[in-house]
Amino acid sequence: MTSNDGGAAPDAELLTATTALGDALRELIETSVTTTADAAEVAAAAELVRTATARIGGRPRPVSQLPRLDDPSVGRRVFNPVTGIANPLAPPLVVRQDGDGVVAAATLGLAYEGPPSFVHGGMSALFMDQMLGSAAGAAGLWGMTAHLELDYRGPLPLQTPLVLRARVESSEGRKAHITGTIARAAEPEKVLVEARGLFVMPRPEKQAAYFGAITDASGKPSPPRRPGDATALRLA
Amino acid sequence: MTSNDGGAAPDAELLTATTALGDALRELIETSVTTTADAAEVAAAAELVRTATARIGGRPRPVSQLPRLDDPSVGRRVFNPVTGIANPLAPPLVVRQDGDGVVAAATLGLAYEGPPSFVHGGMSALFMDQMLGSAAGAAGLWGMTAHLELDYRGPLPLQTPLVLRARVESSEGRKAHITGTIARAAEPEKVLVEARGLFVMPRPEKQAAYFGAITDASGKPSPPRRPGDATALRLA
Repeated sequence: MTSNDGGAAPDAELLTATTALGDALRELIETSVTTTADAAEVAAAAELVRTATARIGGRPRPVSQLPRLDDPSVGRRVFNPVTGIANPLAPPLVVRQDGDGVVAAATLGLAYEGPPSFVHGGMSALFMDQMLGSAAGAAGLWGMTAHLELDYRGPLPLQTPLVLRARVESSEGRKAHITGTIARAAEPEKVLVEARGLFVMPRPEKQAAYFGAITDASGKPSPPRRPGDATALRLA
Repeated sequence: MTSNDGGAAPDAELLTATTALGDALRELIETSVTTTADAAEVAAAAELVRTATARIGGRPRPVSQLPRLDDPSVGRRVFNPVTGIANPLAPPLVVRQDGDGVVAAATLGLAYEGPPSFVHGGMSALFMDQMLGSAAGAAGLWGMTAHLELDYRGPLPLQTPLVLRARVESSEGRKAHITGTIARAAEPEKVLVEARGLFVMPRPEKQAAYFGAITDASGKPSPPRRPGDATALRLA
């Protein structure tokens, strides 16, 4: 096992393998919550997963160190839990600029279930927070969530194409007011979830306190130049 | 591969294997976002994961069919994406009754990261939505999220013990007002995230429309007797 400490330059082979692992895990997660296999087969699957963990474990990066594949300056955050192609928790949402805002499509499986056959209400909140942050990034703004508010007009069905949107309504100084919606792709005008957020850029002294210890993969100090890096528009 | 269609009775062997798979996947997810292994090792891990998927895939339950291990009537939802012991997306939160509300402890890894070294703001919203729903369940109430509102007073550090709380403030008819907080366990009085929610029980005709097609694992009609089943207190 060798380590690639090349910093921000994307290693194509590592990116391919890491993306493949993210995709494979996403499929296994959905399979694990829907399987009708018997206990012995499920136990055998668990053993294979433990073998995979042993294969790549043993020397994790510390929490203060960015992953080798990331370059926050261009919005590449491969392990973001909503948009990151290599984070198995993420559907992932592929966020694209659209007019004066951003848009993403998603079809969610049973791993995201709340009430039977519907998306968990908290998942809608998670996705909206990310979309609002991505809208800020797409507008050249940046900030961290200070206030988030959601109205649920109707439940979101699982296994059904959804469309998520967000746009910056206004901004002044360190603050940005951002709104977002979720609807079924088949009926995009009927909004099922509505979100409003206030995103605030931390003052310089707060930025230093929050991110002063962050380094890149080589150990070089690398505090985010923009706190909104974490929610920046994904390069799709 | 055989199927266990025993309905609500928990199959101990299946529960053990399913829980083990959830635990193993949770560990692999965290390892996959922190690994410093080289591309060949990461690719080998992906291949093992695909082998595991092939082992238990092929005959998934439909979205309208509850899993064999679940019994919503006693709050057992093993695949809930926040509290479900067998859902790899869930930390999982173990929610316990405490005084007139509920409490849960969590220490979150890098899979839940938003800004470098901190919990994603949307994850706080996801967890709070679940805690508010669990507080409703613990108080004998039930409902689906109608409104959720969060104030972020400070970022939540990763790899740090957190404490999450929620309690029903008031309820009338089909509506319940519920509040919640997240703080570091070491400084529980300093609230970092504050949530307020309105949960509403759908009218009977809505309940029928939402859940009329739901069956148990044997195919027997099994609409949730309480919509709040999905966010009920976990038996810990």
